[in-house]
Amino acid sequence: MHSQRFYTLTASCPDRAGIVAKVTGFIAEHGGWIFESNMHTEHEALRYFLRIEIRADSLPYQLDDLRARFAPIAQELNMDWKINDSAVKKRVVLMVSKQEHCLYDLLARWQSKELDIEIPCVISNHDTFRGFVEWHGIPFHHVPVTPDNKAAAYAEVQRIFDEVRGDTMVLARYMQIIPPELCAAYPGRIINIHHSFLPSFVGAKPYHQAYQRGVKLIGATCHYVTAELDQGPIIDQDVIRVDHSDSVEDMVRYGKDIEKAVLARGLRYHLEDRVLVHGNKTVVFR
Amino acid sequence: MHSQRFYTLTASCPDRAGIVAKVTGFIAEHGGWIFESNMHTEHEALRYFLRIEIRADSLPYQLDDLRARFAPIAQELNMDWKINDSAVKKRVVLMVSKQEHCLYDLLARWQSKELDIEIPCVISNHDTFRGFVEWHGIPFHHVPVTPDNKAAAYAEVQRIFDEVRGDTMVLARYMQIIPPELCAAYPGRIINIHHSFLPSFVGAKPYHQAYQRGVKLIGATCHYVTAELDQGPIIDQDVIRVDHSDSVEDMVRYGKDIEKAVLARGLRYHLEDRVLVHGNKTVVFR
Amino acid sequence: MHSQRFYTLTASCPDRAGIVAKVTGFIAEHGGWIFESNMHTEHEALRYFLRIEIRADSLPYQLDDLRARFAPIAQELNMDWKINDSAVKKRVVLMVSKQEHCLYDLLARWQSKELDIEIPCVISNHDTFRGFVEWHGIPFHHVPVTPDNKAAAYAEVQRIFDEVRGDTMVLARYMQIIPPELCAAYPGRIINIHHSFLPSFVGAKPYHQAYQRGVKLIGATCHYVTAELDQGPIIDQDVIRVDHSDSVEDMVRYGKDIEKAVLARGLRYHLEDRVLVHGNKTVVFR
Amino acid sequence: MHSQRFYTLTASCPDRAGIVAKVTGFIAEHGGWIFESNMHTEHEALRYFLRIEIRADSLPYQLDDLRARFAPIAQELNMDWKINDSAVKKRVVLMVSKQEHCLYDLLARWQSKELDIEIPCVISNHDTFRGFVEWHGIPFHHVPVTPDNKAAAYAEVQRIFDEVRGDTMVLARYMQIIPPELCAAYPGRIINIHHSFLPSFVGAKPYHQAYQRGVKLIGATCHYVTAELDQGPIIDQDVIRVDHSDSVEDMVRYGKDIEKAVLARGLRYHLEDRVLVHGNKTVVFR
Repeated sequence: MHSQRFYTLTASCPDRAGIVAKVTGFIAEHGGWIFESNMHTEHEALRYFLRIEIRADSLPYQLDDLRARFAPIAQELNMDWKINDSAVKKRVVLMVSKQEHCLYDLLARWQSKELDIEIPCVISNHDTFRGFVEWHGIPFHHVPVTPDNKAAAYAEVQRIFDEVRGDTMVLARYMQIIPPELCAAYPGRIINIHHSFLPSFVGAKPYHQAYQRGVKLIGATCHYVTAELDQGPIIDQDVIRVDHSDSVEDMVRYGKDIEKAVLARGLRYHLEDRVLVHGNKTVVFR
Repeated sequence: MHSQRFYTLTASCPDRAGIVAKVTGFIAEHGGWIFESNMHTEHEALRYFLRIEIRADSLPYQLDDLRARFAPIAQELNMDWKINDSAVKKRVVLMVSKQEHCLYDLLARWQSKELDIEIPCVISNHDTFRGFVEWHGIPFHHVPVTPDNKAAAYAEVQRIFDEVRGDTMVLARYMQIIPPELCAAYPGRIINIHHSFLPSFVGAKPYHQAYQRGVKLIGATCHYVTAELDQGPIIDQDVIRVDHSDSVEDMVRYGKDIEKAVLARGLRYHLEDRVLVHGNKTVVFR
Repeated sequence: MHSQRFYTLTASCPDRAGIVAKVTGFIAEHGGWIFESNMHTEHEALRYFLRIEIRADSLPYQLDDLRARFAPIAQELNMDWKINDSAVKKRVVLMVSKQEHCLYDLLARWQSKELDIEIPCVISNHDTFRGFVEWHGIPFHHVPVTPDNKAAAYAEVQRIFDEVRGDTMVLARYMQIIPPELCAAYPGRIINIHHSFLPSFVGAKPYHQAYQRGVKLIGATCHYVTAELDQGPIIDQDVIRVDHSDSVEDMVRYGKDIEKAVLARGLRYHLEDRVLVHGNKTVVFR
Repeated sequence: MHSQRFYTLTASCPDRAGIVAKVTGFIAEHGGWIFESNMHTEHEALRYFLRIEIRADSLPYQLDDLRARFAPIAQELNMDWKINDSAVKKRVVLMVSKQEHCLYDLLARWQSKELDIEIPCVISNHDTFRGFVEWHGIPFHHVPVTPDNKAAAYAEVQRIFDEVRGDTMVLARYMQIIPPELCAAYPGRIINIHHSFLPSFVGAKPYHQAYQRGVKLIGATCHYVTAELDQGPIIDQDVIRVDHSDSVEDMVRYGKDIEKAVLARGLRYHLEDRVLVHGNKTVVFR
């Protein structure tokens, strides 16, 4: 990200001639300076996607004004769109269970401002990491989940998330299945890291499945959470080589490194408004 | 491979104390010089695997003698075993259809002696590559396969393979399903390259499946052919990164590079007796 | 590439506000339909790069007309620019020595129309591949190079290249150093595959150098040839893992797979006008 | 690693016939059960390397006895050798400066017992991470380094390291050059993570160098520290893809993920006695 403040316009619309001319013509009209721009046409679906960063100080008006002036163009082009301000930090709520690798990793990135976000709180179904999280000055909420209290527990998660005005919920190896209601409440805003190279090895114990099948690479997948388990739009994936000498425990260990890296990359793409969802797929303007 | 002649012993047996001492003690007894050795214990199954290369000129007797002398030890250890001679070239029959990339690739490797094998013939269900194959001085057999003649066609394939004394059959993007009878006739001797990162995208059109699912890496898998489609023991796999801008055609194109490399690596491991099958998995002594 | 005909505009110019609006406004003016567009700003150098594919049948005039109409805009923006027609196949001359892997690989891609190019001839300092090349119906020129005839030999190479109206010269493991005069005659038009991950292991025998240093990955680099050996702008690179058990010969063998894939990718980017050179670096609009 | 206690024998010696027979014959003599064994011959140097894990409870005597009994064999074979006990945790001293990613990463692995080591202390030339380290119950030593106090500072580092009986010193992005005296004091015991794919980009600011050269992959290298800067034996390396759109800051960020993973892998190999140094190279029995 640039040190200068900028507005990020992301949009998608039916493809036709002249879209980018219309959008960039509007930006240029008042001297708007473009930092970075990406376009993509999904040729099968005839749908157009774009992401444009505009230097904030190059426009003679404010964000609200920009939105108001752009609205008629967006309407004419039948766009899904939004404009975000780089000066407004995203608020990211972390959900964890008893594995520490993604939590340590994300807090290190937050600590060093590599991830320039607010973490208003961490929520966990275990009390394990209270001390570690609170040492960082971040509130910690222990919301136990049992077979009997699921509805109440996730109502509480939702209450906390809303109360802290969360933008994005990150399941940082949170080992519980998110109920459909919660998925529906925050579409495209809950990010999970699954410890396999999806669509292989959906569900529980993917490293055991990988070991049994004898695959020669294992991986991890960062995706948006939808009601269907491990089926949401994929944001990023990666793999690492294993061989016959690696036990399930070795795979788990190697896998953690992939999980951390893939989750951090995927989250960053999301936070920078680089991910546009199209059906069950994503356009990622890297 | 070394330029010097050597014998390769590969074996597996129930694990216990003293196996390697017994085997290498036997080799050392007459001054046998070990070039390379690999061992592996499958701890869950308590099964031991080994591969040892012995310099041929370090032994005061011939291969048959070596086998005869080793047999009692193998029996005592309850071993599955074989000893191959690096001076005897393996005879590899290629099966192709209408895609050229694996064929060109394997012939280039054969031409340069990177693959130091005999190719007694190429068999195809199309006549497309007759000229190219025959230009290389390799006999070409056109065995058409139709829904009606399958049994006869594969009987003919088997007849040719036996007639040329084939050791290994390579499905170099041969776009037909091998019938169970043929699979059963040559267990662990038919090698396929599947154009996906198995177990994802079994069956037809894996790149289309990958495109539909929106994965961020695509791959290929080299495996032994068994009666169950795309379920045989995996020898090698690899992947390459794709993104939203890649069409199915792009994926096919990127995929071909992975297919060639993975097939060539897997085939080489097999030909050098580096692959030991264990149930539906492989030990690959790279 | 799309099956439909299109024009590809590539350009770079000093960065300022309004560039993309001006360019795409011009395209939209007569209904030009954009297939694909990529932009990039080099923020340090304040230089702007763009590549736009325009559907040929969406414009009411021909290529020459398009160029003439665009020229004033390009001048206003102080652009380096060109517009190519996808219907005009690029003419690629291959230079080889005695290694076959890149030659087989490129001819397989040409044969299958994966690379939709003309190969007007192959030039070699050895006669080794005459039969193979001519079997494909491609003229073969044997231009021996000795310490004494270098100037004459490369004059002959240049004469042939010009005579066949070559667009691009590919050094497909051509094991000779191209003299500065030839480099200067075709800037940004001679592509080499170097068998190391540059800038490591410049010059001769890079795999030996890699073996001596004990690196754990080896690679290959596709780059434009400039007068300074192995220092030209890098188009693409890749690596593969090796370990202590790999001899120099193993590295050579593994390396060939990387060389083929990287050369083919880099060449394709070049042929599709996806590579824009900026000083000694490249912008590659993948 | 296995949950059962074992002894690890690592050794190297001049190659000859019968080495493994002699060593494993000795182990088998008293019923020693081998968990895992690896051998390698460096054919050029005619040197033999081996690593064997022996189940502690399969031997009728203790570690000291094992060493004493093995010594004559080792002498006969002219071996460099050692035998370690898996029940004795290695003592690892971390050296850090002001970057947190490797520190957080290693402490997370230690916390979860993925790295089953003792961390007797962390030493830093800055006081930045005192709180974080001490929160984990680990002593923290601030040893400032200035141009004027180098000799005294590293004498203090050495004093602390000896006092806490350190086995291995890890430079976890410790941004100072270790003086030759310290390198000489602990040969093969100081591990560094260099933020480039060596031998490219030795010395300071490797990501800047990579950016200037326009490479398409960046990497990191875990190596033993020797008196010659960034020239020590390489333990592990890895890379990640970048492109023209990545700034130096992006490269730094991507690089950190590689650094963490490569350092953790290399350190683990070292701690498990999987790394045997041979001249300026390593044999890594993965």
